[in-house]
Order: sequence, then structure tokens, then C-alpha cells
Amino acid sequence: MPDHNLSDQDLRVAVLGVGLMGADHVARIGSRISGARVAVVNDYVTEKAEQLAATIPGCRAIADPLEAIADPAVDAVVLATPGPTHEKQLLACLEHRKPVLCEKPLTTDIDTSLEVVRREAELGTRLIQVGFMRRFDDEYAHLKALIDGGELGAPLLLHCVHRNPAVPDHFDSVMTVRDSLVHEVDVTRFLLDDEITSVQIVKPQPNSLAREGLFDPQIAILETAGGRHVDVELFVTTGVAYEVRTELVAEKGSAMIGLDVGLVRKGAPGVWGGTITPSFKERFGRAYDTEIQRWVDAVRRGAETGNYVDGPTAWDGYAATAVCEAGVQALQSGQPVAVTMVDRASIPGA
Amino acid sequence: MPDHNLSDQDLRVAVLGVGLMGADHVARIGSRISGARVAVVNDYVTEKAEQLAATIPGCRAIADPLEAIADPAVDAVVLATPGPTHEKQLLACLEHRKPVLCEKPLTTDIDTSLEVVRREAELGTRLIQVGFMRRFDDEYAHLKALIDGGELGAPLLLHCVHRNPAVPDHFDSVMTVRDSLVHEVDVTRFLLDDEITSVQIVKPQPNSLAREGLFDPQIAILETAGGRHVDVELFVTTGVAYEVRTELVAEKGSAMIGLDVGLVRKGAPGVWGGTITPSFKERFGRAYDTEIQRWVDAVRRGAETGNYVDGPTAWDGYAATAVCEAGVQALQSGQPVAVTMVDRASIPGA
Amino acid sequence: MPDHNLSDQDLRVAVLGVGLMGADHVARIGSRISGARVAVVNDYVTEKAEQLAATIPGCRAIADPLEAIADPAVDAVVLATPGPTHEKQLLACLEHRKPVLCEKPLTTDIDTSLEVVRREAELGTRLIQVGFMRRFDDEYAHLKALIDGGELGAPLLLHCVHRNPAVPDHFDSVMTVRDSLVHEVDVTRFLLDDEITSVQIVKPQPNSLAREGLFDPQIAILETAGGRHVDVELFVTTGVAYEVRTELVAEKGSAMIGLDVGLVRKGAPGVWGGTITPSFKERFGRAYDTEIQRWVDAVRRGAETGNYVDGPTAWDGYAATAVCEAGVQALQSGQPVAVTMVDRASIPGA
Amino acid sequence: MPDHNLSDQDLRVAVLGVGLMGADHVARIGSRISGARVAVVNDYVTEKAEQLAATIPGCRAIADPLEAIADPAVDAVVLATPGPTHEKQLLACLEHRKPVLCEKPLTTDIDTSLEVVRREAELGTRLIQVGFMRRFDDEYAHLKALIDGGELGAPLLLHCVHRNPAVPDHFDSVMTVRDSLVHEVDVTRFLLDDEITSVQIVKPQPNSLAREGLFDPQIAILETAGGRHVDVELFVTTGVAYEVRTELVAEKGSAMIGLDVGLVRKGAPGVWGGTITPSFKERFGRAYDTEIQRWVDAVRRGAETGNYVDGPTAWDGYAATAVCEAGVQALQSGQPVAVTMVDRASIPGA
Repeated sequence: MPDHNLSDQDLRVAVLGVGLMGADHVARIGSRISGARVAVVNDYVTEKAEQLAATIPGCRAIADPLEAIADPAVDAVVLATPGPTHEKQLLACLEHRKPVLCEKPLTTDIDTSLEVVRREAELGTRLIQVGFMRRFDDEYAHLKALIDGGELGAPLLLHCVHRNPAVPDHFDSVMTVRDSLVHEVDVTRFLLDDEITSVQIVKPQPNSLAREGLFDPQIAILETAGGRHVDVELFVTTGVAYEVRTELVAEKGSAMIGLDVGLVRKGAPGVWGGTITPSFKERFGRAYDTEIQRWVDAVRRGAETGNYVDGPTAWDGYAATAVCEAGVQALQSGQPVAVTMVDRASIPGA
Repeated sequence: MPDHNLSDQDLRVAVLGVGLMGADHVARIGSRISGARVAVVNDYVTEKAEQLAATIPGCRAIADPLEAIADPAVDAVVLATPGPTHEKQLLACLEHRKPVLCEKPLTTDIDTSLEVVRREAELGTRLIQVGFMRRFDDEYAHLKALIDGGELGAPLLLHCVHRNPAVPDHFDSVMTVRDSLVHEVDVTRFLLDDEITSVQIVKPQPNSLAREGLFDPQIAILETAGGRHVDVELFVTTGVAYEVRTELVAEKGSAMIGLDVGLVRKGAPGVWGGTITPSFKERFGRAYDTEIQRWVDAVRRGAETGNYVDGPTAWDGYAATAVCEAGVQALQSGQPVAVTMVDRASIPGA
Repeated sequence: MPDHNLSDQDLRVAVLGVGLMGADHVARIGSRISGARVAVVNDYVTEKAEQLAATIPGCRAIADPLEAIADPAVDAVVLATPGPTHEKQLLACLEHRKPVLCEKPLTTDIDTSLEVVRREAELGTRLIQVGFMRRFDDEYAHLKALIDGGELGAPLLLHCVHRNPAVPDHFDSVMTVRDSLVHEVDVTRFLLDDEITSVQIVKPQPNSLAREGLFDPQIAILETAGGRHVDVELFVTTGVAYEVRTELVAEKGSAMIGLDVGLVRKGAPGVWGGTITPSFKERFGRAYDTEIQRWVDAVRRGAETGNYVDGPTAWDGYAATAVCEAGVQALQSGQPVAVTMVDRASIPGA
Repeated sequence: MPDHNLSDQDLRVAVLGVGLMGADHVARIGSRISGARVAVVNDYVTEKAEQLAATIPGCRAIADPLEAIADPAVDAVVLATPGPTHEKQLLACLEHRKPVLCEKPLTTDIDTSLEVVRREAELGTRLIQVGFMRRFDDEYAHLKALIDGGELGAPLLLHCVHRNPAVPDHFDSVMTVRDSLVHEVDVTRFLLDDEITSVQIVKPQPNSLAREGLFDPQIAILETAGGRHVDVELFVTTGVAYEVRTELVAEKGSAMIGLDVGLVRKGAPGVWGGTITPSFKERFGRAYDTEIQRWVDAVRRGAETGNYVDGPTAWDGYAATAVCEAGVQALQSGQPVAVTMVDRASIPGA
């Protein structure tokens, strides 16, 4: 419903808000996403946007976010601005028919969120995507597929753990709900395909190592329309590390993700375990991507560095051939076979 | 040393050989690699290259591989042709100063491999990279960093396991050495920074479930210039799955990768364990990439599908806001709080 | 406070109630416990006790439990009778100054339990031990030691899971509390050294595969005097296996037992892991016990079987010597050395 | 074939050699083994045996080991003397028809070992058991059962790892073979039911942190009559901990023990995992034994300590009853229910 076809060229994206998260998206679109480029950046600190734009070929800074949204040379918008500005900016995206990826929250209160939903629905086209990125994580996707496959039967419970090593000084007990619990809210709705109908928050004795006045840890108990219960440990001052864990308990078995060991499943008849990688494509698929990307980067920098390689060199290929040749002889003889190679120093530059 | 600067535009890549591996590289460069595009494809089955080229904007098929290498509109080459053709094609790349990513093997025998090394060395610029992609795998990189960090002391031994569920009918005992062992050869050289000086192959009683005449499993014992020993189990008919495992034994501890649970380390004082993800960037970095890429793809297809979203919708954002609002009340009251939401069906299109 | 010194001879134990649990204790004392023997058995099904007594040297059946307790040839009592009879039997033990190991529950209601406590306290000697056997389990003991060691800081939360594959037909929702939750109650009090002050039971949607009318799973939320919260999943119809898991969340880290992998600890600085067995004593201590016990048993049965061995034979010892002798030669030569042994068939009886 | 029936009384055992291992067996028989008692101890340091005997009711020291073996009040012998004395002592056991449990090695050379085998075979009764205690370890027994069950198909390879944190100063490279490898020799013969026909020892670069002159680590390669190969890493100066690991590679899958996580199996169709404990008997069986043993010990010491309990007290039983009573109310109300208990301090002695 944007006014021109977007499939034939790189998508021209405006990133609004280039703080921590927005700047990260700018870098991502620039270096790891094919099919898009950052055409416009915006921030309420104008200089920050201008400095960033100067480092990106073909990118402009636009001071007014609504103007950036309206700009005809912008095909789509990434919204990484503070939550209170989202409502107005989302409505502008709808007005100008611009697809938008909106970092959570959609808006900061329930009435404005509903208004945004209504206005998009009136258009009859989905233009707004919300940034709950866990749905794209391999382990969550794996768990979702396990649920949908039906092998473990109907879901009954979720046990969730959300732990941060530390939080900034301004983080308060309400932010635990709005900024941490919100992820588990979406995980629950995503995994169970069910709406949440009731929330209870339990406040245990606070961590004495946390800031005075912060209720931490908290335990949230969610109930869904389908009668499932979800308990969530929210603990943002563990001092240890980032731990996000979800255990599904279903009628025919259970499964857990986030143990730093992949998905672990328990099911009849009394066994626990995971899946072994079926082939080198699954095991090393990302390595191939990284290999090619780093090679492309090295080649593009080559005129400057005089080196068009970022990985195994021709010498590495030669050495492998030499060892395998000895290996083939050893296969026949059953004895140790010495590897014969020229002295590397005899070939300057090798 | 190519004749023009390659850093200002997308790299124009020629992919030579579009069988299984080459076609995979074409798809990868097209969809997951930023900064490069496939400009030329070639295959000894001419029709296959032509059909593939027709599906890629701005891509041509060239029937003669040497002509493809020489083409001035080709910046760099990916070589996925059969091994016996590598020598001639690599020399052509050197002659035309084209950076090349060459799938293993470099060449099929030791003399031609050495000749390629010499010719590249004479140019004084590295142009040839060999496709040992394990060096780009997270777990191997993690293990390499652990060795180089020195925390476990000097390496002493490697135990390697290389298992395939099955192999094609033409796979013979020599291919176990040339095609399977070769990866462990590069892993050994990469991890230990040491050349291999001797190879022994032990042939246990063959697997009765494998093809008659195939020596499988085999055990290879490698010795390095530095006196380290590496044992490798090569077993290509396990019937189970793909398992690639490496255990380092060093003077102050050991570490293992490939257990499907990330790197597991053992060290003083008597503990085993792994690392917990330090923050959401490490834990969910790939999910962000996937999220943005799928959104970009959905937006570009939107004119056709009428849907510019591939992920959480505005309704999902509204529901999360509603639950958190109830959560904030529950935080204060300590009691269960009902979530209030409008009926989704009341908003057609939501 | 019993009327004679009990340390110089085997303890003469009366086992009251020889159903599933009592009969198990009889077998245990007979075969795996040193320093005690079963001198008296009792059951309300008189024949069952008499039949059992007939199989145990020096053991009598006594029909009246109170008479068994009073018998001067009984030093101590194991109570495995139904809960409603415990009060009267415990008071009899106190009256006759007989130490007693009482299977849970102490009594079936709070007033009689308190009366038993008072009566024992008046004696000024502890005679009653309750059968919460988890306190003697290696993993719980390990977790308790970890808490008491202080390394993880003050405890904040416990997450408990208690799963059974199935329960008998008469098992109802109240038994989930009285028979399953009761173990987690003792675990909580044991691990935290804290009394429980409040209980809440949440009833999610029941498992459709369970018996109609059974609320299963249930979630219990316990609060302690010290302000700690404990959540317990109680799920007795999983269809999978027996799973009992406890995760401690403390101010400086967390630890989990019951994952079928020993205690797994997470703590600063961002690592997870367990402990490697420090020496062969810890690793193989139980194996030594088993070895000796099975050898003792074989020797005692030897006159009957003509075989005084239940383990490696002299031939196994010879074979090991022969292989090691070849190994010592191989150590010197660096070459494979053949093992020389006589033909076993040449020695009839070997 | 001993001259009287041994099944009706406690076995009277003579322990010969009460150094580290022998003293351990004395303590074990005294406290953890039912059906036997230590009747005689012997050591070449006479005073050591006399002091030990004085601490054990009904136990004598006998200075001459052969006299101890011949003593009519000795039913069976545990041999924990130095290896060079074994031959003469074993032959004495055979002469006097005394069952004997002989710590490894059987004898120190192959000819005397064979002589012992022959002499026992002539008697026509097995009297000699050798102390390879790994056969009694749960994990090895589990692995053996898995092999014999046939589920993984015919065994092909074993990979063994034997690591010690440190060894005494007198430990030399030959002891690595005689004292460490010997265990893997018996494990191989036990698991594979196959004789070993050839040994090769590979000597990698020695650990620089080990004593000068010690070849450590070593790699042993064993070949069996059935054509199976076993590789063993022997590394006795790891500085870390005690690690003993065995991986079986079979025609239809593989399995590993010694990862500090129980047996981990890999098999078709592409899954890895372990077994979940099927019931509380398997999970807590040892805890019951420990509970009863510690209770028996407390009761026997009670006259001295005034305390006949070593575990949960009557108060613990009362508290559990009180909490469950509240729990039953909470099950009905769905609300938090306060637990009502009397103040413990109001009952002196409770």
C-alpha cells in the first residue's frame, strides 16, 4: 500500500532515534542485512544524527521525525525513539503508508495502543511490526515448533526466568514490569497462542545487594484465557550474567530452553535429551555466511591493505594436500608416513 | 592489486561451478551477504548456469570459466568447480589479479598445490583464500581464543571425532582421508599453529552395516613438528547424525567443543563448565539480524502481498501494553489483577 | 535414655507395618545396614508379618504393635504403619524410651503432632526421627553445603518441581498437598533454615490425560518467616518419569539439582558448571562397597554354589598382567607389541 | 570348598596389608558391609596391625601372613599386600581353600599369574577374585548393559581417558602402564568380552609441568582378537582433577560415561540424551540406606550423647503437618493461607 513497488531496489530506510538501540540497527542494516540501506537518520539530538549520517554513503539527517516519515525518498521506517513519542510517529507512518518496525512498547498506555491498532485496521493492510525479537531466536523458534508439532501434547504451564547481572541507577520496580516482564508477556502469547487474562506480582525479601527501595527479585504469575499459568522470576541484580530461560510443561512431556545447552526435552518413555545436528549445513551454515562476508570485506579493503584474504591461505591449502597425500599412503601401509613439504621460508611471500 | 578500488560499490562476484556447494554460495551472496552481488555464473553444464542467471537481476552466464575470470566486469571469483580444474583456474585468477575464494582442495596433488603457492608468492599479494570454513565457526573460534589466551597452558593433544550418518555409494576409503580427514588436518594446523609431520591410519574391524570394502571407521594419528599428537576417529556410516567434536588437552586443563552444548571447559581447581551469555547482545544478536532481514523482505514483497509485516503486529503490541498495565497495578496491590482488553473481533483487520 | 547401652551389639529393631515401605526397610536392614538386625516384625495383617519373620534368622512376629514396642528384646522401632496410628505408637515409644524412626507424616493433624513434640520435649532426650530422607540424598546435601558455605550469598528464592509419571486411582487433589508437597515443605525448611508462614495453591487448567476431577498440575507458593518465596510445581500425571528438581536463587548466584547431571551452579563471573570428581575415592567409593558386599555374599553362598567369586577371576588377573607386560615393551619400542597368552581352553576350569 | 558352611554367620575376614587400601577395606567391612566382620589383620609393620586390631571388637593381629591365611578362625582373605608377595599368598589361600579377594595385580609377572590360574583350575572351584572394582560402578554397569542389550549394535571402538591431577614422586612412565593402563585393560575386556592381542604406546611431547623424565601424557592403542581398536589417553599430571571417561562407538550409535553427567547416549534418529530416573526408588534408594544407617549409628551412640536422632526431629514433623494443613485450606480457597504454629521456644527441649 506504499505508493510504489518496493521489491526491485534496496529499501530506503529511515531510522528514527539513534541511541544505543537505533545506532545498533543502523550498523546492522549497513553491514549484515541485504536488500536495505539506511537513507535517513533522525534524533532529537540533531548533531548526533548529522555526525552519523556523514559516515554512511547516501544517507541524510532530517531533524524532524515527522518530516523524515513523510519524505518521499523513504520507503520504510525503524522507530527507536522514546516510547512517549511512538503514538504520534506511528500514526504518521500510517498516514503516509510507510511500513514501520517499532521497538517496544507500541505506545506507553493501553488507550493509545488501542487507537493505533484501530487506525491500522481501518487501512486494511498491516504496516506496523513490533520489535519483540525473541520470536526470531533459534531456541524460541525451536520450542514453538515443538509445541505446534503436537508431540508433547497440550501446553499446561510455562516457567520463565529473566535475570540481568545489573541495571542502571534509574531502574525502578515498575520498570521490572514494563521493560523485563513485557518480553515474557510476548513469549507467553507467542508460545501459547493465548491471551493473558490476569497478573499477580509476588514480592519476596529484596536482594540486599541491590539498590535500596528496588523490589528485586519479583515473581509474576500470569493466567491465560485458556487456563494456563505462567510463573516468571524477574531478577535484575544477580551480579552474574544474562539468563533467559523458559520451560514448557505439557501434557506429554516438557522442554527447556536457555540452559546454554540448546533445547533439552523430556518425554516418554523416560528419556531426556536434545537433537544432534543432522548435517554440516545446520552445523556450519553460519560459518559459511561468516566466511563469505569476511572474504567480501577483505577483498573490498584489498586495494588499501594489499591483502585480499581473511582466512586460510594458499599455503594452508598446500599443507592440507601434502598431509592428505601422506595419509593415503598411510592408509595402504598401516605404518606412520612422514609428510613431505618444502620449507615455507624458501618461498618469500607464501 | 586488482586494477580498480573495490571498496565503493557492491563486489561483482563470479561463481564458477553451481552444483550443490556453488548454488548454495549464489543463494548466500544474494540473500545474506551485504556488499556483494553475483554478477556472473558458470558451470560445465551450460544450461544450468543460464537458468540460474535468469533468476538473478543483473547476472550473466558465461560458458568458459577462464573467460569468466578474465571478464573486466568481474571483481572477484568463488571457485566451486571440481578439484582437478582448480590449478588452471587459480593460475588464471592470479594472472588477472582476481581475488578468489577456492573451495577445498586447493588442487588435487602436492606438486600443483606448491606451484600455486609459488605463483601467488611471486605476485607479493595474497589473492587466494581456501574454503576451510570451520575457522569461522563460533565454537572453533572460541576454542582457538581459549588456546591463544594461554589460560589452559601449552596444548598437548587433540582428540577429534568426525562422524557422518551416511555417504554416497561412490565414497571409498581414500575419500575418508581426502574429504573427511582434510578438515581435521586444517583444524589441527589452525588450533595448534603447527605443521603436521607424520600420519598413521589404523583400520579397526569395519562396520558390518557399511558397504562391503569400505574401511570404516578409521583412526588417524597425526604428529606435529612441535611433538603434539592428534587422534581422529573418522566414521562416515554411523546411521545417526553429523557429529564433529574436538577435545583439546593442554598442560593446565582441557576443553571440548561439539557436544551440542557449546564449549565445555575443565580446569583447575577441579571444576567443569561453560560460560553464561553476558548480555542480551550476545544472546539475541542473531535474532535482531533475523528480525530486520525478515521485516525488510516482507516490506519489499508488500505491494504483492498487501502485508508489510513478518512478526509481531500492532495487536501484539497492544496486548503487551495491556498486560503490563495490569502488572503495574498488581505490583502495588499484591493481588491478582484482571487484564482488560477490547474484543479483537470488534476491530476488523486487527 | 533407653535402659541399657546400645553400642556394643547389633541393634534389635522392630519394624511396625510391613507393607511396601516397611518391607523395604526390613530388606535394607537385613542386607545393607551394618550394626542392626530385624528382631521383630508387625503388621495388622498378622499372616504377612509371620511369613516375613520366618525368612529372617532370629526374628519374631508380634501381633500387637504396642506389645512389640514394649518388648524388652526390642532396642529401637521403625514405624511404617498408616499415619492415623502414629500418635498412639509414638507415645508408646516415648513411654518405653524406645528410639523410633517414624515414616512421614509424624501424625495426621496439627494438634496431635504438637502433643507428640511436647511429650518428647518433657523427656529431655530426642528419641523421634522423622523419615524425610531427602536430607540424606547426595545432591540435597551438596546444595545445603553450598548454601551454608555462604559462597552464593543469602538465599532469596527456591523453584521446586515435583513430577510423577502416574499415581494410583485413589490419589486425589488433597494427597498432592499431603503426600507430594510435604517433601518440598521439608526441603524448604531444611535448605533455608526458616519456618514457612503462608501457603497459596494455584490451580491451572487440569491435564486432560489425568483422571477427571484431579487438579493436576498444581502450583504452590510458600512464604517463609524470613521473607523468602518458594514456588513448587506439583504434577503427578506427567506420563514421563520421576523428576524432582530444586533451584536455589541467592544473592550472588544460583544452583540447580535434579537435572540428572548433578549440581549445576551459576555464579560470578559469568560461568556455569559443576565439580569434577577430585579423586578415585569419590568416583569409585560406592563401587568398592558393592564389590566387597557381592564378594562377601558369594563367599557365604559358596558351599552351595561351588563358586566363591562374583567378579573378575584369576584368569582376568592373568590377562591384565599379560597385556601390561606387552605394554611395557611397547612403551620402550614405540611399535605395536603382540600380547602373548596361553590358550584358555588348555586349562580346564580356568 | 572351604571346610565348613559359611552362610549362617558373619564371615570372619582376614585383611592382609593395612596400608591405605587395606585400612580402607577394614573400615568398609566394619561399617558399611553386612554379613562380614574383620577377624584378623596383618601387616609387615607389626605394630600397625596390632594398633588397628585393638580398635575392632573381636579382632586379632597375626604377624605372619601365611599363618593368618591358615588360621581356622579365618573364613576368607582380603589381600592388600604389595604385589610381589601375592603369588605365595594366593597359593596359600588355594592350599587352605580360603576364598580371597586380591587387589590388583594378580601377580607381578605373566608366568606366576599363569601358575596361579592353573593351580586354581586344578581345584575345580573358583576361590580367587581380583579387585578390578570398576565392574561394580554404576556407570560402567550401565554401559555394559547397554552393549549386551544389543540396542547399539556391535561395538567397534572404545575411546578411553584416564586423568589424574598428580602422582607421587616415585611414579615413573612404566607405572603409567602397570597402574593406570591396567584399569582400562580390564574395562576393555569387560565391556567387549574380547581378549587384547596387541598394544602400541605413543609418546607425545611431555607436559612441561610434570617431573623431568616422565613420559606424560601417553596414548595407548589396544587391538582385540575381534578386531576392535581402543585408544587410551593416560595423563597423570593434569593438575585438575580425576577424570575417567569411556566412549563406546558401535554400529548403531555411541554412548559415553564419565562426563560427570551420567551416561549420555547418541543413537538413531539423530538424538542425544540420558535416562530420567523412573521412580523414587532409583532416585533416592541410597538416601534411604544412608538415613537408616545414620539413625542406627545415632541410636547406638545415644546412651553416650543423650540423643537418639540424626535427622529430622519431631518438631520437623510437626512443622510439616502444620504447613500441609494450611495447604489443604489454600487448595480450597485459592487464596494465601497463613500457617499457624506454636512458638518453638514455648516448648523447652523441642
